[in-house]
Amino acid sequence: MTNMTKQQNILIIGAGLCGSLLALRLGQRGFNVTVMEMRPDLRKVDISAGRSINLAFSDRGNKAMKLVGIEDKVKDLCIPMNGRMLHDIEGNTVLAPYSGREHEFINSISRGELNALLLDEAEKHKNVSIYFNRKCKSVDFEKTTALFKDYTNNTEFVEDADVIIATDGAGSAMRKSYYLGKKFLFSFSQDWLTHGYKELSILPGENGSYKTYKNALHIWGRESFMLIALPNLDGSFTVTLFLSYDEGEYNFNNLTSKERVLEFFGKYFKDALELMPNLVDDFFENPTSPLGTVKCSPWHYKGNTLLMGDAAHAIVPFYGQGMNASFEDVVQFDKVLDEGHDDWETIFKIYEKSRKKDTDAIADLAIDNFHEMKGHVNHANFREKRTLEMALEKHFPNDYSSKYSLVTFNENVGYREAMLRGRAQDKAILNMLADGKLNIQDDLKLNLEKVKTETENILEDDRIAGLK
Amino acid sequence: MTNMTKQQNILIIGAGLCGSLLALRLGQRGFNVTVMEMRPDLRKVDISAGRSINLAFSDRGNKAMKLVGIEDKVKDLCIPMNGRMLHDIEGNTVLAPYSGREHEFINSISRGELNALLLDEAEKHKNVSIYFNRKCKSVDFEKTTALFKDYTNNTEFVEDADVIIATDGAGSAMRKSYYLGKKFLFSFSQDWLTHGYKELSILPGENGSYKTYKNALHIWGRESFMLIALPNLDGSFTVTLFLSYDEGEYNFNNLTSKERVLEFFGKYFKDALELMPNLVDDFFENPTSPLGTVKCSPWHYKGNTLLMGDAAHAIVPFYGQGMNASFEDVVQFDKVLDEGHDDWETIFKIYEKSRKKDTDAIADLAIDNFHEMKGHVNHANFREKRTLEMALEKHFPNDYSSKYSLVTFNENVGYREAMLRGRAQDKAILNMLADGKLNIQDDLKLNLEKVKTETENILEDDRIAGLK
Repeated sequence: MTNMTKQQNILIIGAGLCGSLLALRLGQRGFNVTVMEMRPDLRKVDISAGRSINLAFSDRGNKAMKLVGIEDKVKDLCIPMNGRMLHDIEGNTVLAPYSGREHEFINSISRGELNALLLDEAEKHKNVSIYFNRKCKSVDFEKTTALFKDYTNNTEFVEDADVIIATDGAGSAMRKSYYLGKKFLFSFSQDWLTHGYKELSILPGENGSYKTYKNALHIWGRESFMLIALPNLDGSFTVTLFLSYDEGEYNFNNLTSKERVLEFFGKYFKDALELMPNLVDDFFENPTSPLGTVKCSPWHYKGNTLLMGDAAHAIVPFYGQGMNASFEDVVQFDKVLDEGHDDWETIFKIYEKSRKKDTDAIADLAIDNFHEMKGHVNHANFREKRTLEMALEKHFPNDYSSKYSLVTFNENVGYREAMLRGRAQDKAILNMLADGKLNIQDDLKLNLEKVKTETENILEDDRIAGLK
Repeated sequence: MTNMTKQQNILIIGAGLCGSLLALRLGQRGFNVTVMEMRPDLRKVDISAGRSINLAFSDRGNKAMKLVGIEDKVKDLCIPMNGRMLHDIEGNTVLAPYSGREHEFINSISRGELNALLLDEAEKHKNVSIYFNRKCKSVDFEKTTALFKDYTNNTEFVEDADVIIATDGAGSAMRKSYYLGKKFLFSFSQDWLTHGYKELSILPGENGSYKTYKNALHIWGRESFMLIALPNLDGSFTVTLFLSYDEGEYNFNNLTSKERVLEFFGKYFKDALELMPNLVDDFFENPTSPLGTVKCSPWHYKGNTLLMGDAAHAIVPFYGQGMNASFEDVVQFDKVLDEGHDDWETIFKIYEKSRKKDTDAIADLAIDNFHEMKGHVNHANFREKRTLEMALEKHFPNDYSSKYSLVTFNENVGYREAMLRGRAQDKAILNMLADGKLNIQDDLKLNLEKVKTETENILEDDRIAGLK
């Protein structure tokens, strides 16, 4: 409840993407910022963080980069992906654009390069200090202190601060302290998909060339499992297999021999297999990791401590919004700081109240997209809907945005609003197509009006029924 | 993976309502059943279990009583409640029936009396042994053993079994072992309402008479908080206040003086206060307890262990279905046993697959009803809907059941189906009333057809959009 002044000492736990951006922004605002990161400095040591190598970077994330003034530097790390390259089982491909507006695309970016840039920028501020190899073991949220293990000398120490912000990811130590402390009612959920994932790779061609089309997110959707690939700057692609642990003919638990892995890929991902002579080595060297969603509330304890980023809301990767959502946390938090409140508790309360509905929504949208990517993208009615939406976005760029566009390219629309409007639009189009009330051969302007009217009806019906 | 035979030793953790019913049923089926309960024997010691004194008992619960052949004995413990007696702020009352069909009502029943009956019935079987004052501390689900503390001699012991079924309630020790063990991907959520509850009482009148109308569930709904009362056989009512911990003018955190409690009740529950001269004593003697929902999955570990009842799915009390849902677990489990599978793992898998969607649904419905009871029951459009539904149920008893009836009186319709159909009906009626497409003065048969047609449209639209 101390008055908030710039001289306050802020302890950030975790120097991943969210923590290093937060350190940079709070450094710019003049706070005394200390960051403790459990891993070694990724700028000095080549570490596989056990997390995805590359990520989808889009407009919400970019808004945060603009806020801290490094938009251009980040752009240099980006590879634009204009759409989904859909690979069918025969190896035929079709490019399904993400938007009907040409300037709307997503980017593939290296987690490590981006994190390094954020660390460099944060450390330019004298009032920001970053320590590596310090693992947080627990947080005393009543005393606003955190216990760390220092791996450099194998000792433990307690760090005191005016405020602690934990950006220590999906396995957050501070969130665990909230849960185990039982000092307040802490709502918490962890939900695992039946599918896990494994990272594989398509190596660069000669002279760093790309062995398949560079500017797309490649998808081999096979209903109950899928493979995707995102390009890297060196000409390689990071490939990810999403597959059930124990269901279906082929699953992670029974893909235990070289022969069976090759059989599986040969049967379902023939054209990908041809680009991956290194498949079997990758498959057996790389870990299989689970896919989980974490939600919790409250994020803060009084004005002492706050969870941000994945520590507060870990989501599955299928909307490409995990990093973008965490970056947007920092933008939203910064906006509340701008409001000039006197104490941290008020700031934390306002921040959570405005933010949580949106991070809950992107968590649910990401689960939706798992099913969309695996299978719906191959279905006739879904493809017809997308064809119509691309035409609407192209010809009426100011009047229509698909759910995907609302989520990905409309950084000034909250995730929750994007979810409600986007789902209503999808429902309107799919139903009017099914009922023959909409014909994609009809005049586009007429179809736009039909979709808008039906969408409003759906939203209004839900409001009256008290469902939304 | 042992073959399932009747000679198997089954260890049940917890002899509450679900555990004692399960012990009775498995005893009837010939299994060797051992039950360990942490509390003293409630038939010998007067214990307040820290849980609600009386409960709503309805058709799903009764189906379980029929299964074990004690329907008539349970009926003697029941007080029928035909509807909600709504008390407005002036003290005016109106009885809103639960159903338009006269034979459909719910019952108030004493938790303790019902539990005692189930224990008595279970113990009639020589192959059932029940031990009290044995608290489960943890379960080794790989070895199928459980660690207990024996309060009678302050020692600890390990109990071995072929199968362990935990019915140890919302705070289940075995669920905690699943969570902390991290041996498999365990999805888990605990969600707390911002409201807590406190039990109060209206004492009996002279000669055990009832000071207010006996055969109803009384509700004083005040939008952001509410009071309810259920009758007991001795002429008393158990009264429960549901109130926010820290929001609004009056809340549990600031009702700290006698004067303030009386002021609050005098302002909002005047007619109830007149019946409760003992209010202040009750208020400060009785605990304030939180209201939580627990969901998890999987419920079982291989064929070794299984969670049932509140241990698997704790819900808030607002649909009066907590006990009924746990009893229905036993009915459903018994049905899977009837199918004659060879091993416990298959039985547990089939049971969870068929059951979890329904317990998830009743958890969500119970949250819906919190809002309905607090406020919607007072709203004009909601009341108009209920008036129409009562008329439909009365005049077309085979053609219409409201959401409440589907959940409460249709024990052969699963909770999930009841939720989907019930919500669609509510949406259809509320929207047609709002749009003027339905007039409750119109011919009732016509209105029935309109409601049915619109309900089907809504369900079909959701199916096409892939939302349900």
